[in-house]
Amino acid sequence: MIDIRDRVRCKELHAKIVSAEEAAAIIKPGMNIGTSGFTPAGYPKAVPLALAERMKNEPFKINLWTGASVGGELDGALAQADGIHKRMPYQTNDAIRKALNSGKIEYFDLHLSHVAQMTRYGFLGGKVDVAIIEACAITEEGHIVPTTSLGNSASFVQSADIVIVEVNTSQPLELEGMHDVYVPLDPPNRGPIPIVKADDRIGTPYIEAGPGKITYIVACDLPDVTRPLAAIDDDAKAMSAHLTDFLNNEIKNGRMPKKLLPLQSGVGSVANAVMAGMVESPYSGLQCFTEVIQDGMFDLIDAGKLDFASGTSLTPSPDGLKRMYANLKEYRKKIVLRPQEISNSPELARRLGVIAMNTAIEVDIFAHVNSTHIMGTKMMNGIGGSGDFARNGYLTIFFTNSVAKNGDISSIVPMCSHIDHTEHDIDVIITERGVADVRGLSPRERARVIIDKCAHPDYKPMLLDYLERAEKTTGFAHTPHLLDEALSWHTRFIKTGTMKVK
Amino acid sequence: MIDIRDRVRCKELHAKIVSAEEAAAIIKPGMNIGTSGFTPAGYPKAVPLALAERMKNEPFKINLWTGASVGGELDGALAQADGIHKRMPYQTNDAIRKALNSGKIEYFDLHLSHVAQMTRYGFLGGKVDVAIIEACAITEEGHIVPTTSLGNSASFVQSADIVIVEVNTSQPLELEGMHDVYVPLDPPNRGPIPIVKADDRIGTPYIEAGPGKITYIVACDLPDVTRPLAAIDDDAKAMSAHLTDFLNNEIKNGRMPKKLLPLQSGVGSVANAVMAGMVESPYSGLQCFTEVIQDGMFDLIDAGKLDFASGTSLTPSPDGLKRMYANLKEYRKKIVLRPQEISNSPELARRLGVIAMNTAIEVDIFAHVNSTHIMGTKMMNGIGGSGDFARNGYLTIFFTNSVAKNGDISSIVPMCSHIDHTEHDIDVIITERGVADVRGLSPRERARVIIDKCAHPDYKPMLLDYLERAEKTTGFAHTPHLLDEALSWHTRFIKTGTMKVK
Repeated sequence: MIDIRDRVRCKELHAKIVSAEEAAAIIKPGMNIGTSGFTPAGYPKAVPLALAERMKNEPFKINLWTGASVGGELDGALAQADGIHKRMPYQTNDAIRKALNSGKIEYFDLHLSHVAQMTRYGFLGGKVDVAIIEACAITEEGHIVPTTSLGNSASFVQSADIVIVEVNTSQPLELEGMHDVYVPLDPPNRGPIPIVKADDRIGTPYIEAGPGKITYIVACDLPDVTRPLAAIDDDAKAMSAHLTDFLNNEIKNGRMPKKLLPLQSGVGSVANAVMAGMVESPYSGLQCFTEVIQDGMFDLIDAGKLDFASGTSLTPSPDGLKRMYANLKEYRKKIVLRPQEISNSPELARRLGVIAMNTAIEVDIFAHVNSTHIMGTKMMNGIGGSGDFARNGYLTIFFTNSVAKNGDISSIVPMCSHIDHTEHDIDVIITERGVADVRGLSPRERARVIIDKCAHPDYKPMLLDYLERAEKTTGFAHTPHLLDEALSWHTRFIKTGTMKVK
Repeated sequence: MIDIRDRVRCKELHAKIVSAEEAAAIIKPGMNIGTSGFTPAGYPKAVPLALAERMKNEPFKINLWTGASVGGELDGALAQADGIHKRMPYQTNDAIRKALNSGKIEYFDLHLSHVAQMTRYGFLGGKVDVAIIEACAITEEGHIVPTTSLGNSASFVQSADIVIVEVNTSQPLELEGMHDVYVPLDPPNRGPIPIVKADDRIGTPYIEAGPGKITYIVACDLPDVTRPLAAIDDDAKAMSAHLTDFLNNEIKNGRMPKKLLPLQSGVGSVANAVMAGMVESPYSGLQCFTEVIQDGMFDLIDAGKLDFASGTSLTPSPDGLKRMYANLKEYRKKIVLRPQEISNSPELARRLGVIAMNTAIEVDIFAHVNSTHIMGTKMMNGIGGSGDFARNGYLTIFFTNSVAKNGDISSIVPMCSHIDHTEHDIDVIITERGVADVRGLSPRERARVIIDKCAHPDYKPMLLDYLERAEKTTGFAHTPHLLDEALSWHTRFIKTGTMKVK
């Protein structure tokens, strides 16, 4: 067994060190389990694996609440053990995705800034029963030092009757000091969140607990299983270049400070490529106020262009993780990890004026965005933090490739098959083809700009034809649609394997 | 001519008093005109009427930016003169509605809290060129005392090169002192909005201007043309009773304080009926943190149940207006009018924890809401402030009658024909049939609750049949839909005049 006593600096707590199996045994069927973890970073591993083992012999289900997506040792293991009744608020795991798209797991995705308060309000079916939190260490006073993410951990610990801490020896002790933990009071007692700059610190470097609050401590040495990022391809490079051109023009026209405003960038390869592309940009003195800190941001720090990054999770690729650990003492000066209700706070996104950059699955000609559903029915991951930032940013940009599936899917469609972000929240759409700036445009004006600048040439004539016939049929209604044809591109794809008319 | 010199307390400004025609003559084609006015309250009347007259002889167009909807002397007169190129952010005028639904006016609706900052950022096609503001009076220092609404007036005055003030003698001087004017700085210099209770005051009782800022002053004695409210019918009474039952249960379960949390209530008859219904409720010590202060809230004040109301506009019915004017000194102690970027601030809605109550045109079985479009294409009014509150409230409720058009339209549909509020933003749906509490439910669970509790019996079997076939066809996908049938209820109504299958 791994010796974690030097990391449990509160000696009184040594008596609470137990095996993962012993800790998992406290969990009862139907409990709400709130865990650390945001993207495959900082999630508990040993206790969930032990719980999944227990479920194999003694089938039962729990409700799993996390920060966002977590790794296979938690989502995968419990889904394979058929041990999850309800799951929220975001996921990227194959087993979970399959289960929630076949009626086996009840899943609901939420704006990530909403999760902690909704659980505290008791709105999601009771409070958190058990919190399972990954830690680097436990302080002399019995407080919990988190690892590579903060997510909802602090709020879950506050609410839970049972708190299990997994001290993970694979997580470097240098992570201590990187966190800024602040849990707002709930209405009617809530005050302003006193952050006015991305690098302001307002809380504690640990999750307040104390020896009386912690039920069990478990040792773990399994590392975060991070995911490799796709290589930066030509399309991603083109989008990144379009972004720089667009922002340069905003600066030139006095609509954007020269140092820009704090950048928020979604998760994934396109977002990462866009950030990495900024290394070649003319900007310096940049700041990020975002959710997830990915490889591209380390590139920007190394290039001396990024002064500070605020997030809730460190999610480098496997290569990026090595690089981060090797330079943690330096990176620590320029990074803070906050609870997701702070990192993603609408109040702060609007006050700081973030440039909100997120990825769409599809966008329609009137600038509605689908971030979650494949062909309107199958959940991909979840809305994540995109709504927290897109609604409240200074400038809101969505990226998507103009086509998918070798050109058989147009990402620009007449009507989105599912809508996560409405026309009221979108300023700019960028594909590899160009930039559609839809600020201050009526729906019909937007449609022409989006078709012209963003659609793939194979689909442009079809989109324009749809728009013109819809205008004629509806007498130039505010949002011209042919309702019996609006979703026909999707049904054609389902039937024939392509959105193109053969 | 009406003598307004006693209301223009800054003597130096008497020289700037001109006729409406003289003031209107300064407006040039293509200018962005920003006016006071929010709902038919506090909008300028004399100058727009003069401008419309001028346009009849000398056709040209301007862009019209307001707080929200305004009266016929502004929207109606300019639309009839074919004088509006672009219009934002909200309207309720027949002539405007007709024009924007026939390609004659380019209209875009925005979250009302976003409007002022978007114009200051220069995102909507230049800055405000001319501000036209209705005033009760001008102070000794040359500052502007607004009338029955505040809207975007303060920000428009700040930005505009030309400021025209309409001093309206029909507006009682007792309105002075009711306003709290605060315009936030823009990023990167913005700070927290320092309001922590509905009745906090943080600004000035006037719009800062000064003699140098004001270009012209015009006299006006035309009163606000307010609209009568529909009589409170049985359906509205039923919704109001459902709300009280629901809230009582929340209090009983410890999810809501006994005094509730600040109430936000949308515009219109249903919203008004719901507020009026609270007179019969067990609650007292209530507060409103809302957009529009309607008759129902005066009822609550008179009944001693409402301690304070914060809004941006006073919009009583014609009868309510008389009653308000008669008791203005008393009401003034319990009412504050704020700029709409404060009254509707997401930061404040979330901090104070408002109970957000708004009206839907239609709701789908997965809890998406259409607030704006009739049959997906024709704009009714606009999104208004519903998104500001619904996304950020403590508890978000949408009301709708289960059917419209004598039962030929079901307000509960398989898929909304336009989406303004997504599944991520809705907690509760109330029709005259009952209450669907969808918090913490997966889409398929939501569908069953909404059909069961909210749908009209005539449509329940059809909705359930759709859901079950969609589940089977998609293999119980996360959001089961039959895309070739999802909008068929709307197309059937368009073709046959009813959503029922004959």
